[in-house]
Amino acid sequence: MKISMYQASVPAFVHALNNLVAILEKGASFAEAKKIQPSVLPSSRLYIDMFPLTRQVQIATDIAKGGAARLAGVEPPPFEDNETTLPELIARTKKTIDYLQTLKPEQFEGSEDKTVSWSTRSGSKSMVGLPYLQAHVIPNVYFHCTTAYNILRHNGVELGKKDFLGNP
Amino acid sequence: MKISMYQASVPAFVHALNNLVAILEKGASFAEAKKIQPSVLPSSRLYIDMFPLTRQVQIATDIAKGGAARLAGVEPPPFEDNETTLPELIARTKKTIDYLQTLKPEQFEGSEDKTVSWSTRSGSKSMVGLPYLQAHVIPNVYFHCTTAYNILRHNGVELGKKDFLGNP
Repeated sequence: MKISMYQASVPAFVHALNNLVAILEKGASFAEAKKIQPSVLPSSRLYIDMFPLTRQVQIATDIAKGGAARLAGVEPPPFEDNETTLPELIARTKKTIDYLQTLKPEQFEGSEDKTVSWSTRSGSKSMVGLPYLQAHVIPNVYFHCTTAYNILRHNGVELGKKDFLGNP
Repeated sequence: MKISMYQASVPAFVHALNNLVAILEKGASFAEAKKIQPSVLPSSRLYIDMFPLTRQVQIATDIAKGGAARLAGVEPPPFEDNETTLPELIARTKKTIDYLQTLKPEQFEGSEDKTVSWSTRSGSKSMVGLPYLQAHVIPNVYFHCTTAYNILRHNGVELGKKDFLGNP
């Protein structure tokens, strides 16, 4: 037995995003308990020219959704990027999980050798499926989930690595 | 073709750690250019009760080294945890890459179903190989590499996600 492209992507992203939901929920409880305005944590960032929490969650979910969809050979559903509160970011993350769970293992067969293409702000990019998953999608999903965690942690939300890793 | 346990771990960790070396090198150049004392960035953290940069790099390398070694059925070489400067953290990361490159794909055969055990501060843990890799080792390696990046970024080191992702 080896790991299928499906196994290496969808269940891992669902797990990471479920943990992100739990992290954002702790952020929301913290903000409510401290009576912090709903837009403060979503617009917090670790440095002046870094993306704020909102954008971190939008990118984490976009890359999980787009990465899995492209490997499965389907078009990912577009999301609007209009979230401004933690409950909205939680809803977006849950919507992404729901979408990921509609993808089937058989759609990923042969995707390791297939070239996937996507558009970026500066044009379009393409990569072969296996390096696309391993060197682009997976590190990107964890990068943005971790940065979301770090932004909340930096602002005093009581989180530990257990929240990030969840229960395997 | 599916992804082997070796392919899902060693090359991905070597890639992530090479990027970590490049990130730490940018931190070292920044500190030198700004005449910052060598211990300042290594002891920086994102919140008072979070681990500083030194510990983030020590854990990222320990988990990559220990995770891969356990899946390969060999004992990981112990490191001393005595780094206090960026050049020392870079050397530790390079030493980890060198070790990972001694592991051979055939050592990982069947590791997805094998139970791996390791000791923690609070006792010992064990997990089956595939969830150990996917839900513990991979997220942990990216978590600590991203947090190292975020600590440097938070302190003004000029880094972008390209530095984290490297060249696939």
